[in-house]
Amino acid sequence: VPARALTVTYHIRTTSESVTELAEALALEQSVETPLHVARRYPVVEREMLGEVAGTEKVQDGWLVTLALPVATASVDPAQFLNVIFGNASMFPGVTLVGFDLPAEAIGWATGPTSGLEGLREAAGAPGQVLTCTAIKPVGLDVAQLSDLCYRFALGGIHIIKDDHYLADHPFAPFRERVSRCMEMINRAADETGRRTLYAPNLSGTPGDLRRQAEYALTAGAGAVMMAPMQVGLPAFHEIARSIDVPVLAHPSFSGGAGVAPDIMMGRLFRLYGADAVIFPGYGGRFSYTKEECLAIADAARSPWHQIRAAAPTPAGGIRIERVSELIETFGRDTMLLVGGSLLEAAEELTARTRAFTEAVAQA
Amino acid sequence: VPARALTVTYHIRTTSESVTELAEALALEQSVETPLHVARRYPVVEREMLGEVAGTEKVQDGWLVTLALPVATASVDPAQFLNVIFGNASMFPGVTLVGFDLPAEAIGWATGPTSGLEGLREAAGAPGQVLTCTAIKPVGLDVAQLSDLCYRFALGGIHIIKDDHYLADHPFAPFRERVSRCMEMINRAADETGRRTLYAPNLSGTPGDLRRQAEYALTAGAGAVMMAPMQVGLPAFHEIARSIDVPVLAHPSFSGGAGVAPDIMMGRLFRLYGADAVIFPGYGGRFSYTKEECLAIADAARSPWHQIRAAAPTPAGGIRIERVSELIETFGRDTMLLVGGSLLEAAEELTARTRAFTEAVAQA
Repeated sequence: VPARALTVTYHIRTTSESVTELAEALALEQSVETPLHVARRYPVVEREMLGEVAGTEKVQDGWLVTLALPVATASVDPAQFLNVIFGNASMFPGVTLVGFDLPAEAIGWATGPTSGLEGLREAAGAPGQVLTCTAIKPVGLDVAQLSDLCYRFALGGIHIIKDDHYLADHPFAPFRERVSRCMEMINRAADETGRRTLYAPNLSGTPGDLRRQAEYALTAGAGAVMMAPMQVGLPAFHEIARSIDVPVLAHPSFSGGAGVAPDIMMGRLFRLYGADAVIFPGYGGRFSYTKEECLAIADAARSPWHQIRAAAPTPAGGIRIERVSELIETFGRDTMLLVGGSLLEAAEELTARTRAFTEAVAQA
Repeated sequence: VPARALTVTYHIRTTSESVTELAEALALEQSVETPLHVARRYPVVEREMLGEVAGTEKVQDGWLVTLALPVATASVDPAQFLNVIFGNASMFPGVTLVGFDLPAEAIGWATGPTSGLEGLREAAGAPGQVLTCTAIKPVGLDVAQLSDLCYRFALGGIHIIKDDHYLADHPFAPFRERVSRCMEMINRAADETGRRTLYAPNLSGTPGDLRRQAEYALTAGAGAVMMAPMQVGLPAFHEIARSIDVPVLAHPSFSGGAGVAPDIMMGRLFRLYGADAVIFPGYGGRFSYTKEECLAIADAARSPWHQIRAAAPTPAGGIRIERVSELIETFGRDTMLLVGGSLLEAAEELTARTRAFTEAVAQA
């Protein structure tokens, strides 16, 4: 592997006619962060550690700058990787991380999803299918109410039920009691229907909390878990994801302001750090992401990339069940559709509306 | 504590003449994230969990929107806190988190720095003084070279020597060997000068890596540590910070500038999560932060705030030693000055130049 085999591309929003000076400054900042003449005193630093500008391209609202950066610095751990691809650069004005690639064989920890889209389908008993997912919410409900929602969603044939991302270890719905009771109700539904829904509790807190919650969830029989990688920290997310053998759903909370393009954040970083499914704000819902941005996220999450498994792109965020065929037409079949509020609106008709959703997906 | 005693303020960049609809949408998104009529079915949710718009104000380039949010949801753990103050809101276009306040007495984990500025001064043997700090770099040097820099910096009378944030557990300068050898050379200098410099190794990696590194560093006698909270994750940073009794320096790498205002990110979040010193890009260096932005960061890091200790504001990033008196005039004496490259340029004269720096600070 060549010393500078890690490439990153930044978009720089600027009206400037030249980007040479800034590009050189970024190459220095993202590699040795030391005055150039000081760095050059040391042959090994000059030979192997200094970043280089690999290319620049003028685009409509600024410049694209591609850097070639040292693998040796970046590869050592999953926090240092973030440092090298976007650490101090994140504090330069108008700079967005819009791409990166890495010699995966040189980065031992960067193995990506353990299950991936196919493993998730298998766990859900739905090979080849468009997956369906929903969420139990709102926060504030007690364990009886949340687990009752699980039961009724499961009767409707949904593949995966996840916790709302506001559900943590709250006194009014404690994690252990919630997971146990939700599993009980999902198992009851499975006994009635003959098919098993996966439950993905939301892990939240310090790394110690995450470990304890993951352990409990697996013991209780949860078939998946969810975390928000930017809230818990990408390295903490990675540590849990690689240590458990059930699929991991990644929630995008707290990721939007980081200066990383959504397709790179959700489709590439979350995937690289071990997400088996990548939840993102679908176009036409509560968020303002465009169809093109959503397709870029989906593409980044599942397109071939070294030996790293595909993650399931999961549009969400105010999607109505009436849009099933449109969404499958847009995103294709290697997709999971996450519908929450649009099902919960059905109140007493929750199971029927869930069945309408899952049947529409199955027939699409 | 009232149910909605957590307030957050967003700046929304928009030319729109009205912000009512968006403000209401954000209040819903940051609290129950469920259609309003669904949330209102449950009395406890309506009474205690729904966010409210507490105020809006038109400003030159958009609007300020202040929300009152449920303490119960946010307080439970340090990841969920991020979720409530800026989770999904981070994915709304043009929204920046520009302020928050919390009923500290209601949030058990939010105890802030363990040492704080005063504890850091005490640990450095420098009560009442402007603190001085430098960094060993560039990445690529071996342990002998790095520890030699420690020796020469320490002879120059610097208060704190930190690792460059690119130093991790690299094969060419392994963490344990680096820490041991740097401590040895700092102790040798202390034997010669009679005053002890603190060494702050950089902890990097997964939460497990951080724990193992922190434990080793403390056993080896390191008087401080450094982490980059946004790289390792704020909850992971917090878990380590509260578990050790030496001061913790927070590095701003990967903290961006787009989603959370720098004073709130570095001065408030880093401090709340346990940073005893907050490193930030000083004006007039390699970064483009203005003097006003830097003063806002310093103010957020050290101004009185509930019972939370002050953190040491630490301007850095290309600061030259010739600027000592200007910087102290700007930031005042409750400050730590971090100068790296400007000292390293002195090459063989490193100790003399370090002494010039520390004496200029002592006499300012």
